[in-house]
Parts: sequence; structure tokens; C-alpha cells
Amino acid sequence: MTTRIVELRQGILKKNDELARGLRLRFQSAGVLVLNLVSSPGTGKTAFLERTLRDLRANGAKVAALVGDLETDNDARRLAASGAPVRQINTHGICHLEAEMIGKHLEGWELADLDYLFIENVGNLVCPSSYDLGEKIRVALLSVTEGEDKPLKYPTLFNSADAAIITKIDIAEPCGFDRATALKNINEIRPGIRIFEASAKTGAGMVDWLAYLAEQKSRRA
Amino acid sequence: MTTRIVELRQGILKKNDELARGLRLRFQSAGVLVLNLVSSPGTGKTAFLERTLRDLRANGAKVAALVGDLETDNDARRLAASGAPVRQINTHGICHLEAEMIGKHLEGWELADLDYLFIENVGNLVCPSSYDLGEKIRVALLSVTEGEDKPLKYPTLFNSADAAIITKIDIAEPCGFDRATALKNINEIRPGIRIFEASAKTGAGMVDWLAYLAEQKSRRA
Repeated sequence: MTTRIVELRQGILKKNDELARGLRLRFQSAGVLVLNLVSSPGTGKTAFLERTLRDLRANGAKVAALVGDLETDNDARRLAASGAPVRQINTHGICHLEAEMIGKHLEGWELADLDYLFIENVGNLVCPSSYDLGEKIRVALLSVTEGEDKPLKYPTLFNSADAAIITKIDIAEPCGFDRATALKNINEIRPGIRIFEASAKTGAGMVDWLAYLAEQKSRRA
Repeated sequence: MTTRIVELRQGILKKNDELARGLRLRFQSAGVLVLNLVSSPGTGKTAFLERTLRDLRANGAKVAALVGDLETDNDARRLAASGAPVRQINTHGICHLEAEMIGKHLEGWELADLDYLFIENVGNLVCPSSYDLGEKIRVALLSVTEGEDKPLKYPTLFNSADAAIITKIDIAEPCGFDRATALKNINEIRPGIRIFEASAKTGAGMVDWLAYLAEQKSRRA
């Protein structure tokens, strides 16, 4: 039984990888920088993305977002308040986004008109790690409320991420957040990864994050 | 492709359900109350369970715990500090516990000597919902830091839970936790579910929770 499952899983992943490769080529030729945001439920992906979309638009960038959830379009409505085009992907029980879902939900969008496309994955620290969505940059988010050992306990995500964001730093103190240990653990799993410490509420860390986005975008030109 | 996946998934679930039924019978005949704790990574399952084990032992109850994580035995070490027998289940990439893993890790334990057995699932709001572990009571945990709409976005877990625990209530205020909305959303998905509001740090809510455990235990006699 185990062997058959593993074989089938590899088949699914192979198909996903092929679709993701196609997406990546489309994104590259359109000149849009695509980011895939992954975290636990409740880390604050939506709040952080909402702020990012708003700040980028205020700086004249053209942005859009796809957001995955099992159910509800709460997040799409929250993100749309930024003024950016946003589409909700409801997975109805599937615990991650797949390349095929991304392809479908891009229909009708002119990618060449965009500077940045953000994909907010389903809240899950495990399954999204295995599914390439054609993104250029995978971002792992971790909040100060979650415990500093998450990178050690969920190594696959952190190991496959290009950047890490520690969210909700405005409440680091009441949460007893141990910053040194968190940084050490992230670096242990993914040495040298770029780490941001941010708060969507206060705006702390947003300048560094926006500078990183601009730098990554210009690298692609 | 989709059909084959669904069929195989149902095959896995059917096999799991059969094993879970066997476990449930074993637990019942041994007279041990078994609880399955499910939440996001970082909700505070381990801290809450650590406190529960310690408080139950202080009241003379015989308790044990199984704890699931992809990697590390951090949680087992934390829980073992309570003095209770604890075993770590490392799933190595699998995003939930399965009945077969529970069966294997019970070897050598005399279930009839236990009053309560707690199973701390892998941190994940999606996949554990589909896997019966033979538990009597499924507990969904949600922290004040995670956002009040989680029950709406992850209905399968809350819909299949027997009790809900709102954790970290000591930091409700700095997190801007909206208690009324959280309670409303939980009740919308699972009307009448028993809800506890607790803090492993301050001990708030523990008396009610321990009373509930004792009541459920006595019902089984």
C-alpha cells in the first residue's frame, strides 16, 4: 500500500512540476515577479500581504494577488480593499495550492501589465512545501506567537524558502518571543536566508521588505 | 487522474477507519479516555497539554501522551517534564497522524492502567480532520493570535470536534482578540459545542477544563 501511495504521489508531483515549469516561463517572459507566501493558519499572511499591496501601489507598482483557502472568500475581500485585483481560490478540502489552480485563476489577466503577483497559499506548514507554483520567490512566514522551534519542526518549508518573515513583531514582548533563538533556528535550517522582522499593524520592517522586492524585481529585468 | 486520487484516498481512509475502530474498542475495554488534540502549528497545544498532564497528575489521575511531529522530539521532551509517560511519533513528512501510527506506539503500554491518554496531532488545521485515531473526544484548539475566522475557513476540523479550546487568553488584549466573533464563528460551524477559554501560562480556564475531563471520564464508566 505504502509503495503505491508513494508512486502516485510522485506522479502528482511530477505533473505539478511540469505545470509549474510552464507557469514560470510565462511569468518570466511577462516580466512579473511572482511570490508564494506560506505559513501556518493565523500567522498573519493576509494582513501582511494587504499592507504590502497597499504600500507597493502607493509607490506606483502594479500588483495583483491570488489567495487560497479551503472555504470562504474572506481573504480576497480583505485584500481587494487595497485596490489591487485579487482572486480567491477555494480548494474545498485540499490543503495546499497546486500549479493547475494557479493557471486556471490567471485567465483573463494580462500578466505583462503587472510588476508583482503574490500568491497567498492555504494556511499549512507542511503540504504547500511540496507544490511548486512557478513562483520566483518562496516566502516562509512565522509569527512571534508561534514558538521559536517551528523551523526545526517543519524543515521542508524553511529549507525550500528564499526569504523568511517574522510577523507580528509589535506583540513580541507580551508573547515572550525569543528573537535570538528564532533567528538561530531559521539559519540552522536555511543558512544565510534573508530574514525580515515586520508588523503589518505598525509598519515596522516594511521599508526593508519593499526594498528587497524592488531589488528582486530589478534583478529580473 | 483526479478520480484515481480520490479512489486511492478513500482506500487509505477506509483502512484507517478500520484500524481506528479497533483502537476505539481497545480504549473502551481498557477504560481509558482518549483525546485527540488538533490545531495549527503554534496554537500552543504542547503548552496546554503540558499543563493538563501536570494538573491531572496532581489530582491523582494516571495519564499518558503520544505526540506527533514531522521531525524532532522537542515536544515529547517538554511533555515528559510533567512526569507522565510520553512517546514521540515522527511522521517524517506526513502531515497528520494515522491510526496505524497510534497502534504501533502503544506497544508495551498497559492501557488499563491509564485514566487518560492524550494524542497531540501534527500542527495542521486541514489533514488531521480526515483521520480518526480511535479517540473518544476530538479537541480543536485555536489561539487568540490566529484570527477569529479560522472556524469558517477550516470547517472540517471544527465540524468534527467535540470540544474547542481558545488558548493564550492571557494575551487576548494585545492581540486585539474579538471574543464575541470567535464564539459566534465556532458556534456557526458546530452549534452547541463545548468551548473553553484557557491560558497554560496563567492557568485561567483550567478548572473548567479539568471538570469537563472528569465528567467525560465518569460517563464512560
